[in-house]
Amino acid sequence: MELNKNILQVPYSLIRELTEKAQKKENAIMLTIGEPDLQPPKELIDYGCQYAQTHALPYTQSGGSEHLRSLVAKHYNKYYGSDINANNVTMHIGSMEGISSVFRTILNIDDEVIIPTPFFSPYEQAVKLSYGKPVFLDTRDDHLVLKPENIEKVITNKTKAILFSNPGNPSGYMLKKEEMDELVKYFEKKDIFVIADEIYSAISFYPFTSFASYPSIKDKVIVLNGFSKSHSMTGWRIGYSIAPEEVRKYLVNASFNNVGSMVSLSCAIAEYALENYPVIESFRDIYKERAFFLAKELNDLGFDVIEPRGAFYLFVGYSKFSNEPSLDFSMRLLDNTGVAVVPGIAFGSENYFRIALTQDIPLLKEAAKKIKEFITK
Amino acid sequence: MELNKNILQVPYSLIRELTEKAQKKENAIMLTIGEPDLQPPKELIDYGCQYAQTHALPYTQSGGSEHLRSLVAKHYNKYYGSDINANNVTMHIGSMEGISSVFRTILNIDDEVIIPTPFFSPYEQAVKLSYGKPVFLDTRDDHLVLKPENIEKVITNKTKAILFSNPGNPSGYMLKKEEMDELVKYFEKKDIFVIADEIYSAISFYPFTSFASYPSIKDKVIVLNGFSKSHSMTGWRIGYSIAPEEVRKYLVNASFNNVGSMVSLSCAIAEYALENYPVIESFRDIYKERAFFLAKELNDLGFDVIEPRGAFYLFVGYSKFSNEPSLDFSMRLLDNTGVAVVPGIAFGSENYFRIALTQDIPLLKEAAKKIKEFITK
Repeated sequence: MELNKNILQVPYSLIRELTEKAQKKENAIMLTIGEPDLQPPKELIDYGCQYAQTHALPYTQSGGSEHLRSLVAKHYNKYYGSDINANNVTMHIGSMEGISSVFRTILNIDDEVIIPTPFFSPYEQAVKLSYGKPVFLDTRDDHLVLKPENIEKVITNKTKAILFSNPGNPSGYMLKKEEMDELVKYFEKKDIFVIADEIYSAISFYPFTSFASYPSIKDKVIVLNGFSKSHSMTGWRIGYSIAPEEVRKYLVNASFNNVGSMVSLSCAIAEYALENYPVIESFRDIYKERAFFLAKELNDLGFDVIEPRGAFYLFVGYSKFSNEPSLDFSMRLLDNTGVAVVPGIAFGSENYFRIALTQDIPLLKEAAKKIKEFITK
Repeated sequence: MELNKNILQVPYSLIRELTEKAQKKENAIMLTIGEPDLQPPKELIDYGCQYAQTHALPYTQSGGSEHLRSLVAKHYNKYYGSDINANNVTMHIGSMEGISSVFRTILNIDDEVIIPTPFFSPYEQAVKLSYGKPVFLDTRDDHLVLKPENIEKVITNKTKAILFSNPGNPSGYMLKKEEMDELVKYFEKKDIFVIADEIYSAISFYPFTSFASYPSIKDKVIVLNGFSKSHSMTGWRIGYSIAPEEVRKYLVNASFNNVGSMVSLSCAIAEYALENYPVIESFRDIYKERAFFLAKELNDLGFDVIEPRGAFYLFVGYSKFSNEPSLDFSMRLLDNTGVAVVPGIAFGSENYFRIALTQDIPLLKEAAKKIKEFITK
């Protein structure tokens, strides 16, 4: 029997491929996967255990309880200057389910979604598996800064949405306030959804501004966020979206028909986290130290490192050293040095590779040393 | 902006509507929601806590670890006579994500999926949200038994799959071995996927036979199951599918792009459960006692109760007492007696209502008494 035409074209993840190859290598330095090495506060786990011992853990309300959703709304209002309430919030099985369910809610067949490149690779599949068309927008000439004049070049009357992460994965860049203001002025005039993946908001090296904080576009902004990066709770699968109420009432149905229910215990821990650990500054500080350290090392070597302003990645241009495709360059780097990075092509952008800053400084120092040997050889 | 044409048509859940109405009523007897009242063994929760205290809980491998998948395969082989291995198994965020991801894997636009009625209502939306067409097959004339000659009446060259639950929700019926044999003989000759939702397999009042146990159709059978009903772990969101290897390799990508990862802790508990609590006989025995008790009571009153053979539902025909639509009948029953049931129309079948056997015998006895008063009044 013939399978879905879109799923047949989903490639095997390059990130997984590189990681698996690296795992077979002795003493490899793994800088591939965006899995936080920092552990969540022990109190969160303790609370979860205590909760599980004293409560039934049934199906949750679709899209999460009103209590949890109102805590999320208050959190965004307090820290990120939005003006939302529980009726704007939907809990998700991580922000990836959020993205999947959002596209099931807003896309019709052949609707176009603009995705600035480099981009978090599942975005492309999320659009295609909902029968939408990803339209890629290369931002390399602007040092990965998204600009209205470039969106204008690819927007059409079939454009339903634009989707990007800020702070950016894989770029490590976070838009400056004035860059956001310009974008918002542009979005005000356009009849498209602005989907901002803000999953790295808590890991911002400068004050973070949310797209949810602009009243002038609040009828078209859909924000994604969650606890995977802010609280290192990746395996708990707990994220959320913020959407206009008119969208949210359908989004809840899309999510329900996609996954049935949230994870009860993860919701309980999320409530506790929002009330007791709303911000974990040490995570941000540690990633920042790593980012600034390694960016300087690599810039000093002659690499073109995108300015790290948030998230836990460096996106590194290597044009000075090689014209190779990024897959070849990354494979050669791995083979010669044991340093495993992800080729830019995995994110739609050649001539770069991505480093995940999920290792301690001493290991990053060693990686820098090996990369230096590699390029001077 | 125009939203997805399918999501705009998803109705508000009748089950939720009835439940919410009943919750406002004093002393209502809630027989609406399929949420087990029986709690999982305390040891499973204890193990989960111990695990969470001593392990990081990162993203899982897409579709679950090979270890967990091979435990699932061994479990099915041992208890249900299949001959599968880890490469047939995909872990899911509950079997609902399984169904959603399966349809994203196998359906193309306008592919038809046969759904015998009455059916678990999210099936319809799962098909439609993947741009498939549900084709309903009324089984009331056969006392809800699925028969080849009736499938033959609705099958077309656009039919991609048939989807049903066995043991059945809402029917409470479980196919007899000879009924399955006949169906399998029919499926052997047809080029369609046979999607058997076996989530209630552990709650079978007679020996359960899995569709995965028939070698002659193993290239077309997709089974869904999980821990929500067998272990009362609804809020942990841990299910799985069994599929031909050629399908499974795409299904893993569909699931990854849908939800990113499984719940780490739920996977750990599932492993422990498969090794230490593979079967919880007391659950089955308790539901069976309730089912047989209440079926007799209602049959004695003159209702036409579908023979309960598994799951924890009674599907009750009320034609002897009323020609009303099932929504009106259920609402009137609720208003007059406080007994909250789900109208058959929520599952696509008029002239019936569904009772969830998720309350103790004394309460079921009281419900029967009130229903008696209602019909004799």
